[in-house]
Amino acid sequence: MAYVQDFTWTSGITVGELVKHFGAIGYQSVELARAKETIVKMKRASSKIFLTFTSNMVTTGLRGFFAQLIKLGMADVIVTTAGAIEEDIMKAMGERFPIGTFSMDDVELHERGDNRVGNLIITNESYCRLEEQLLPMLNKVYAKQQRLTVSELLRELGLQLHDEKSILYQAAKNDVPIFCPGITDGALGFHLFMYQQKHDDFVIDVVKDFKRIVLVTSHDDIKGVIALGGGISKHHAILACLLNGGARYAVYMTTARSTSGSMSGATTNEAKSWGKVQDESDIATVIGDVAITFPIAMIAALEELKQEGLLNGKIPAA
Amino acid sequence: MAYVQDFTWTSGITVGELVKHFGAIGYQSVELARAKETIVKMKRASSKIFLTFTSNMVTTGLRGFFAQLIKLGMADVIVTTAGAIEEDIMKAMGERFPIGTFSMDDVELHERGDNRVGNLIITNESYCRLEEQLLPMLNKVYAKQQRLTVSELLRELGLQLHDEKSILYQAAKNDVPIFCPGITDGALGFHLFMYQQKHDDFVIDVVKDFKRIVLVTSHDDIKGVIALGGGISKHHAILACLLNGGARYAVYMTTARSTSGSMSGATTNEAKSWGKVQDESDIATVIGDVAITFPIAMIAALEELKQEGLLNGKIPAA
Amino acid sequence: MAYVQDFTWTSGITVGELVKHFGAIGYQSVELARAKETIVKMKRASSKIFLTFTSNMVTTGLRGFFAQLIKLGMADVIVTTAGAIEEDIMKAMGERFPIGTFSMDDVELHERGDNRVGNLIITNESYCRLEEQLLPMLNKVYAKQQRLTVSELLRELGLQLHDEKSILYQAAKNDVPIFCPGITDGALGFHLFMYQQKHDDFVIDVVKDFKRIVLVTSHDDIKGVIALGGGISKHHAILACLLNGGARYAVYMTTARSTSGSMSGATTNEAKSWGKVQDESDIATVIGDVAITFPIAMIAALEELKQEGLLNGKIPAA
Amino acid sequence: MAYVQDFTWTSGITVGELVKHFGAIGYQSVELARAKETIVKMKRASSKIFLTFTSNMVTTGLRGFFAQLIKLGMADVIVTTAGAIEEDIMKAMGERFPIGTFSMDDVELHERGDNRVGNLIITNESYCRLEEQLLPMLNKVYAKQQRLTVSELLRELGLQLHDEKSILYQAAKNDVPIFCPGITDGALGFHLFMYQQKHDDFVIDVVKDFKRIVLVTSHDDIKGVIALGGGISKHHAILACLLNGGARYAVYMTTARSTSGSMSGATTNEAKSWGKVQDESDIATVIGDVAITFPIAMIAALEELKQEGLLNGKIPAA
Repeated sequence: MAYVQDFTWTSGITVGELVKHFGAIGYQSVELARAKETIVKMKRASSKIFLTFTSNMVTTGLRGFFAQLIKLGMADVIVTTAGAIEEDIMKAMGERFPIGTFSMDDVELHERGDNRVGNLIITNESYCRLEEQLLPMLNKVYAKQQRLTVSELLRELGLQLHDEKSILYQAAKNDVPIFCPGITDGALGFHLFMYQQKHDDFVIDVVKDFKRIVLVTSHDDIKGVIALGGGISKHHAILACLLNGGARYAVYMTTARSTSGSMSGATTNEAKSWGKVQDESDIATVIGDVAITFPIAMIAALEELKQEGLLNGKIPAA
Repeated sequence: MAYVQDFTWTSGITVGELVKHFGAIGYQSVELARAKETIVKMKRASSKIFLTFTSNMVTTGLRGFFAQLIKLGMADVIVTTAGAIEEDIMKAMGERFPIGTFSMDDVELHERGDNRVGNLIITNESYCRLEEQLLPMLNKVYAKQQRLTVSELLRELGLQLHDEKSILYQAAKNDVPIFCPGITDGALGFHLFMYQQKHDDFVIDVVKDFKRIVLVTSHDDIKGVIALGGGISKHHAILACLLNGGARYAVYMTTARSTSGSMSGATTNEAKSWGKVQDESDIATVIGDVAITFPIAMIAALEELKQEGLLNGKIPAA
Repeated sequence: MAYVQDFTWTSGITVGELVKHFGAIGYQSVELARAKETIVKMKRASSKIFLTFTSNMVTTGLRGFFAQLIKLGMADVIVTTAGAIEEDIMKAMGERFPIGTFSMDDVELHERGDNRVGNLIITNESYCRLEEQLLPMLNKVYAKQQRLTVSELLRELGLQLHDEKSILYQAAKNDVPIFCPGITDGALGFHLFMYQQKHDDFVIDVVKDFKRIVLVTSHDDIKGVIALGGGISKHHAILACLLNGGARYAVYMTTARSTSGSMSGATTNEAKSWGKVQDESDIATVIGDVAITFPIAMIAALEELKQEGLLNGKIPAA
Repeated sequence: MAYVQDFTWTSGITVGELVKHFGAIGYQSVELARAKETIVKMKRASSKIFLTFTSNMVTTGLRGFFAQLIKLGMADVIVTTAGAIEEDIMKAMGERFPIGTFSMDDVELHERGDNRVGNLIITNESYCRLEEQLLPMLNKVYAKQQRLTVSELLRELGLQLHDEKSILYQAAKNDVPIFCPGITDGALGFHLFMYQQKHDDFVIDVVKDFKRIVLVTSHDDIKGVIALGGGISKHHAILACLLNGGARYAVYMTTARSTSGSMSGATTNEAKSWGKVQDESDIATVIGDVAITFPIAMIAALEELKQEGLLNGKIPAA
C-alpha cells in the first residue's frame, strides 16, 4: 500500500523529480503522477498514440510542444478542431497572440478588433491575413486533387508550411495523420465554402476520412489515448479506438465535470462501460487546466522515456 | 435599482411564478430569470432562433421538449451532434434508456452491454437495432440523391420517422433545418462509411452545408442563440451568426467554466469581443445543469409567450 | 427499472409537477427529484433535521424561505456562519441588498462603498448601521448572562428581532437552536471583541456549545441533514450526527467538486465511509447553484408534505 | 505587450524554468506565473504574510511543505481549521495516511474503518490514537493556564510535538501564531468538550483571539495573503487584513467558482470591492487543485527568493 509522504523543497528541483513527489502528495497530484506513468507505459508498449486537443490549446504556447511531441514520436494520430488548424497556420505565418486578462472589457476589445479567448487575444488582422494566405494554398491542393478527405487536405496544407513549431508541418513531415471531423466549424469552413463556390467539384469527403481513422490502427495494435479537453476531438479518438477493440491506455485531462453527463466531462472510468478503454487498461483522469497539467505530466514522461531511449531524433538539452 | 426580495412558498406555485421570484433571489437564479426574459424578447422581436444542444441532452427526457419547441415555433435552426441524431432515431424506434446512478460499476456495466452516460444507460441492443433500421432508410435517401448536405440527409431521415416527440421528425415537418457539422463523429459516421463502401458516389457535402447555414439567415434578420452546453454545436451556431453580423440575443447554459479559455465555457460576455453577439445585445449566461435550468427558464418563457399569442399551434393544457 | 421519459410542457405546470418529471429526465434533474424524495422521507420518519447554509445564501432571497421552513417545522437544528447571522440582522432592521452583475467594476464599487457578493451588493452603510444596532442588543444579553454559548447568544439576539422573515427570530420563537462554530469570523466577531474590551468577563463558550450540539439529538433519534453549500456549517452538522451514530437521510447541494478532496465537495457517498451517513441511508447529492436547486426541491417536498398533513401551522396559499 | 510563446521541452528542465515558460503559455498557467511573481514581490516588500489552508491539504503531503515554509520565513500568520490541527498532530505521532482512489467502495471502507478524503484515507485507528495522545497534552496546557485563546492553545500543543515536519511545531518554534476560528469543528472539538466536562473553568476564548489576529499586524504593515482553498480560513485572514486597511498582495488558489457568490470561489478581483485587497495591489487567482498549483508556484518563488537571499535558515539542496 502506498502512503502520503510529506513533501519538502530542495533547491533546483526538476519537473521530473517533482512529479515523483506528486505521486505521494494527494488528490489531483496523485492522478497527474498516474497520468505520467500511463504515458510511459503506453510508449513502452509501442502503442499507437492518439493525441487530441481543442482549438483553445493551440491558441496557447502548447502549440510548439504538440509539434515537438510529434517529432519525438509521441503521437501517431492527431484529432483536433478547425480552430486549431487555423491558428497553427496563422502562427506559422508569423502571427502573434497577445496575452491579456480574463476581465478585460469585451466591448472595448471588439471595438479595436481584438477577439478574446480566456486571457489571450486573436486580432482581426490575424484572421484577415489567414484569408489571404489560404487561397494560394488551396489552389495548390486543388490542382492536385479535387475530392479529398480532411486528413489529406491537412497534410497538403502542412507540406506548404515551413515552421518547425507547426503542428501541421511536423505531422506532414512525420506521416502523422491529422483528423478533424468538424472541419467546417471555423473560419476555415468559410474559406472552403468560398472556394467551392468557384469550384463545384471541390469536395471534402468526411465519410471517407472516417474510414481512414478506423483503418489507421488495427484491432491488434495496442492503442493509447491522450485526450486534452473534451468535445468532438476527444470523442472521435475514443470512438475510433472503440471500433478497434478499445484503448489499452487512456489519459484524460479536462476541467469539465462528470455530473452533467457530458462526454467532455466523462472520466476514464465511464469509458470502461463503453469498451472505449479496456477493463484492465491503465487509465488516469486529471482534473485541471491542461495548460498546467499537461506539460508537467508529459515532461516527466519524456525524461523517463529519454533514459530508456524511446524517443525519436535528437533530444534537446538545456 | 432592483433589490433582493425574501422568497416564501405559497402552495401550488407554478414554474412561471417561481421564475418571477428567481429574479430577486440571487446568483444563478437571477441569471436564469434573465435567460427567461431574453428568450421572451428574442421571440417578441421575431428573431431567427438558433437552438443548439449536445448529444447527452438527447439522451435525457429533454428530447421530447426540444421536439415540442420546434412545433411551437421556438427554433428556426437546430445545430447538434451525431450522437443526438442517433439517439433521436433510436427513441423514435421505441428504444428505452434506463436510469442508473453516477457511481455504477463500469466494468460490470460493460460486461452486460450497458453503456453509461452520467446516470443514464444506452444498451448495446439499442445500437444494434439502430444499425438494422438505418440501412433501409439510407437506401431511400440514396435512391433520391447521391451527393447531399448533412441538413438534407437529416431532413430525409426525419421524414421517415413517425414520432411526434422526435426532433428530426418535427424539424422535417416544420421546415426547420438541422445542422450537424461533425456528422461522422458517432455510430452514424460508421454506418455512413459502410454505406459509402458499397456506393462510392455517395457523398456527404459538409462544405456545401456551411453555405446553407450562412444563408439560412441574413444580415438583416434579427438573430437569437440559445446554446445548451458547449462543443461544436454551440460554436457553429455563433459562428453562423457572426458571419451575418452577430446575434442580438444570446442565452448560454452550461456547466463549463471560463477559466481555461474553452469555447464551451466562454460566456456571453466574451462573445461580445468577437462580435458573436452584438454589443447592445440582451444576453444571459446560466451556470448549471441544463436538465434543470433549461426547462425552468423555457417553461416560464412559454407561459408568457402564450399570453401574448406568440406560440404556434395548439397549446397543451394540463 | 426506471426509464427516461420525454418531457413536454403543459401550460400552467406547477413546481411540484415539474419535479415529478425531473425524476425521469436525467443527470442532475434526477438527483434533484431524489433530493425531494429524501426530504419527504426524512420528515415522514419524524427525523431531527439539521439544516445548514453558508453566509452567501442569506445574502439572497432564500433568507425568507429559511425562516419560513423553521416555522413549518422543517428544521430542528440550524448550523451556519457569522456572515449569515449579520445579514439576517441587517435585513431584520430594514437593510436592502441591491442586485448587480458578476462583471461589475470592483474598484468603482469600492470607491462608492459597495461590497460585491457574486451579483449582489452589501453597502458599507448596512455594515455601519449594524454596528449601531448591535451594541444595545449585546447590552441586554450581557445584563442577563456573562458567559454564554453561541447558540444562547443567537437565541437572545433573535428574541430582540421582530421580523417574521428573520431566521434568528423564527428560530428563537420556535425553539430551534442555531449553531455557529465560527462565530468570530465576521463583523460580528469584531463587535464581540470590542464588547469584550469593556467587559472582560464576557465570554463566548464555544466548547460548551459543542456539548449542546452533540446532545441536541440522541443516538436513538433518526437524523437527517440538508447541507446547502459546504464549509464549516456542513461539516459541523455531519460531525454532530456522526457522533450520534450518523444521519439516516442526507441531502447535499453544492457547486463544489469532489476531485480535490475538499469537504465542501464531498458527496453523500463519501460520507458513508465516515459513518457520517449510515450505509442504508437515503441520500442525494445535487450539483448546482443552491439559489435554483434548493427552492425547487424543497417546494416540491412541501407540496407533498402538506398533502400528508406533516407541516406545522397555517399553509400559505396563492 | 506580452505575447504567447511556443513552449518546447529541454531535458532536465527545472520547476523554476518551467514557471517562466508558464507566463507565456496561456489561461491558468499565466495566472500561476503571476502568483509566483506576486509571492516574490510580497516577500521582497517584507510583507506580513498570512498563509491559509483547509484541513484536506494537511491530509496530503503538502503538510511537510507548509512546515518548511514557516521555517523559511514565508508565513507570519497561519489560519486553518480544526481538522488541519488534528491531522498535523496525528502525523507528528507517526500516523500514516494510505493513498486510495476516488472511486473506492465507501460502504466497504466504512466496514473496515477507513475514512475517505478524496483519494486519501484516514483510518479509525489514527483517530483513536489521537484521543489517547491528546489527554496528557491538554493536562499540561491546563496546568499552566485555564482560560486561553485558540492560538495560545495551539502554541502549547506545538511545543509538545517534536517533528520537524509538523506545522504546529515549526509555528511554535518560530513564533508564528496559528489561528483557528472554528476550533471546535472536528474531533478536537469533541476532546475539548470532554476535557471541559471535568474542568468547568477550562475556557477557550475565541473572542479574545479575534483581538489577537487584528493586532498581530498593524495598519502600517504591508500585508500579503496566500489563501489555499476557501472556507473560514480564507475568510478569516482577509477579514483580519481588511480591518487593518487591506492586503497589498493576494494570491488565491482554489477549485471553487465565483458563479454562486460563495466566498470560497470569490476572486482576488471581487476582494477589491470589499477593500479586502487594495486597489493597486498585486493579485492573482489560480483555478486548479492546490496539490498541483501551489507547490509549483511556491517552488518557483523560493528559487528566486533564494537567489536574493530572502529566505531564512539553511537552504536544502538536492
